[in-house]
Amino acid sequence: MDNSPAVAPPRRLHARTALAAESAFSVMSRLAVQYGAVNLGQGFPAGSPPDFLLEALSRQAGTADQYTAPAGLPALRGALAQDLNVAADQITVTCGATEALHTLADALYGPGDEVLMFEPVFDIYRPQALLSGARPVLAPMTLAPDGWTPGLDALEALVTPRTRALLVNNPHNPSGHVFTRAELERLVALARTHDLWIIADEVYDELYFGEAPAPLRTLAPERTFTVGSAGKRLEATGWRVGWIASPAGVAAQIAGLHQWATFCAPAPLQAAVAAALPLARETGFYDDLRRSYGARMRLLASGLRSLGLDVQTPGGSYFITALAPGLDPRHLVEHGGVAVIPGRAFYAEGTAPDGLIRLAFCKPPRDLLLALERLERYLQA
Amino acid sequence: MDNSPAVAPPRRLHARTALAAESAFSVMSRLAVQYGAVNLGQGFPAGSPPDFLLEALSRQAGTADQYTAPAGLPALRGALAQDLNVAADQITVTCGATEALHTLADALYGPGDEVLMFEPVFDIYRPQALLSGARPVLAPMTLAPDGWTPGLDALEALVTPRTRALLVNNPHNPSGHVFTRAELERLVALARTHDLWIIADEVYDELYFGEAPAPLRTLAPERTFTVGSAGKRLEATGWRVGWIASPAGVAAQIAGLHQWATFCAPAPLQAAVAAALPLARETGFYDDLRRSYGARMRLLASGLRSLGLDVQTPGGSYFITALAPGLDPRHLVEHGGVAVIPGRAFYAEGTAPDGLIRLAFCKPPRDLLLALERLERYLQA
Ligand SMILES: Cc1ncc(COP(=O)(O)O)c(C=O)c1O
Ligand SMILES: Cc1ncc(COP(=O)(O)O)c(C=O)c1O
Repeated sequence: MDNSPAVAPPRRLHARTALAAESAFSVMSRLAVQYGAVNLGQGFPAGSPPDFLLEALSRQAGTADQYTAPAGLPALRGALAQDLNVAADQITVTCGATEALHTLADALYGPGDEVLMFEPVFDIYRPQALLSGARPVLAPMTLAPDGWTPGLDALEALVTPRTRALLVNNPHNPSGHVFTRAELERLVALARTHDLWIIADEVYDELYFGEAPAPLRTLAPERTFTVGSAGKRLEATGWRVGWIASPAGVAAQIAGLHQWATFCAPAPLQAAVAAALPLARETGFYDDLRRSYGARMRLLASGLRSLGLDVQTPGGSYFITALAPGLDPRHLVEHGGVAVIPGRAFYAEGTAPDGLIRLAFCKPPRDLLLALERLERYLQA
Repeated sequence: MDNSPAVAPPRRLHARTALAAESAFSVMSRLAVQYGAVNLGQGFPAGSPPDFLLEALSRQAGTADQYTAPAGLPALRGALAQDLNVAADQITVTCGATEALHTLADALYGPGDEVLMFEPVFDIYRPQALLSGARPVLAPMTLAPDGWTPGLDALEALVTPRTRALLVNNPHNPSGHVFTRAELERLVALARTHDLWIIADEVYDELYFGEAPAPLRTLAPERTFTVGSAGKRLEATGWRVGWIASPAGVAAQIAGLHQWATFCAPAPLQAAVAAALPLARETGFYDDLRRSYGARMRLLASGLRSLGLDVQTPGGSYFITALAPGLDPRHLVEHGGVAVIPGRAFYAEGTAPDGLIRLAFCKPPRDLLLALERLERYLQA
């Protein structure tokens, strides 16, 4: 076989590939391995999933290996209906929340449309909106010493006749903000006034440390698409089982688009998640997770504060933000042995608050302590 | 919780959802279950995957449950590089071949572009092209009593300055045609003359019954994207592990777009496939598969011929086509107890040859015999 090109390679890829840059998360995970750094960057648990999930996978061996219906394995749709308190036919099972959000972008907006979201913004929202042809419009969450506040007036001022949807992430990555019921009600009123769809990215719905976040679908069932993730819920981010709970009547069209993106989600993992979801509730797994993550969050927050950093205590999610003016995360991972995500990963070019960083605390306490030690040494040098 | 809409549901979904109809494959699988029919419709094996794959999954338990890099688990990229004789950095692991084709559509063309493909055409190609904004352009494969012939002159006549890519499925679904080396060389010459990318959907690369299909990347490495599927190779269509082998130099951009579609493929299944791919070669699994599927194909072909049907013997794939003028597959599944796919699933509206059906023979011989018996009774009635 002759692998050398016989002729020049073809013309360029489509202009969309300008959106294809390696994300700050992948870059940092790569550098963390390369420099032996403690990885408080990308949001995945350091350990294994709980035994009840791995056992559910082993129990189903050989029983669910062929295509499922695009909407998902009936057992999983049933378990999710129960868990989310919706009808099973509202559920579309997807290849992770990432594909859920991608499919919704295609289903809800396109060229000429606008979609509202808060900034700082989870990195996939903007490229997904742009790939659909729509324009992402960013409303600020403002940073005060004690936490983040969504700019609801600013958001309202950004609504135009082209606005089609409101993308709300609650609990919010990277800020850790949990929207209050009053804030959610204001968002719902705004969506109703301007006839907007609501995409509620609730992948961290079980990860909160104070008041539980109210699911947006309970406030606006007629227009809310709830997005969730078994990976985030069950500490198995690599499993790629996510879901959409659609408003009544439109789920078939969502599943119909999803079939052109991935056809269906991984069948054996769907089967295992179907068995594990009720077990997670029965065994108090989410309560344990909140307790254990809450303790780690407080450990990291107080450690960072004792280093003199300005820290925003999160109400939920895996993440904590802090202000470390002048700190360069790339230099830190190479010379200080700690990987964190630079704030600019969540902002439009050049608009991130100076020194903002995001740290993931879904890591073992010993890693958090080691990271704090290294940070202390690095900041002193 | 009050689930009744407080106000009217929002304006309509995006016009793209017109592409969201349930596919003929899903419809037929659903009806097959409903009517207790033998399912020779959708292309998935009736049985379980081979033991060496299930054992590989059980051996990796608890070791690969978090995000992999978007391009894939290093072990799987390495195994695929070996298997396909390309460099590991040319590999992007995807959520099935379906997502591979979806990501390539976004990477290679958009509004104003055209993409050439043969008709009959696998059902996902057209909606995926349309979702990217491009226009699918169909060149005929013509049907003769003894088999199918790709219309290469017709294809060439359809090239315009807007043509960006040539999508070739080999072995071809639904026709079973395996392109000869001369046909492939003609396609490569055409792609070079007009500077087109080649997407080679080779998911059935190990499923042939005569001459082995030549991988297009060996003929045109500078412009060929090879698409493959662990699901098809290893009898596990529900696993959703597929791949793209890109021309040298552009794989990073492909992985970059793939990260916005699904982020990464299912990690535990990637790990199992990485272990199983070399085993499949060492144990002669593909040879056994060809022998066993070849026997089933001949069983079904001769059975259909003895019922008086005009049958095209496939050179590869899971599928056989036949002409049964006047037969209505929907009536057949409801009243005759056999599910097949109507030819029109593979054609633009109203252009399918009368009575064309596709039957999958990746099913146990007893199911094939039962289907033949039922068909005989149905055709006599
Ligand atoms: C807010 C948010 N949404 C969605 C996702 C993606 O979830 P999944 O891994 O299920 O694709 C993430 C992952 O970090 C996230 O933080
Ligand atoms: C020609 C062809 N390409 C791609 C696919 C999809 O493969 P996967 O199941 O890996 O998504 C199929 C499935 O039937 C097919 O027939």
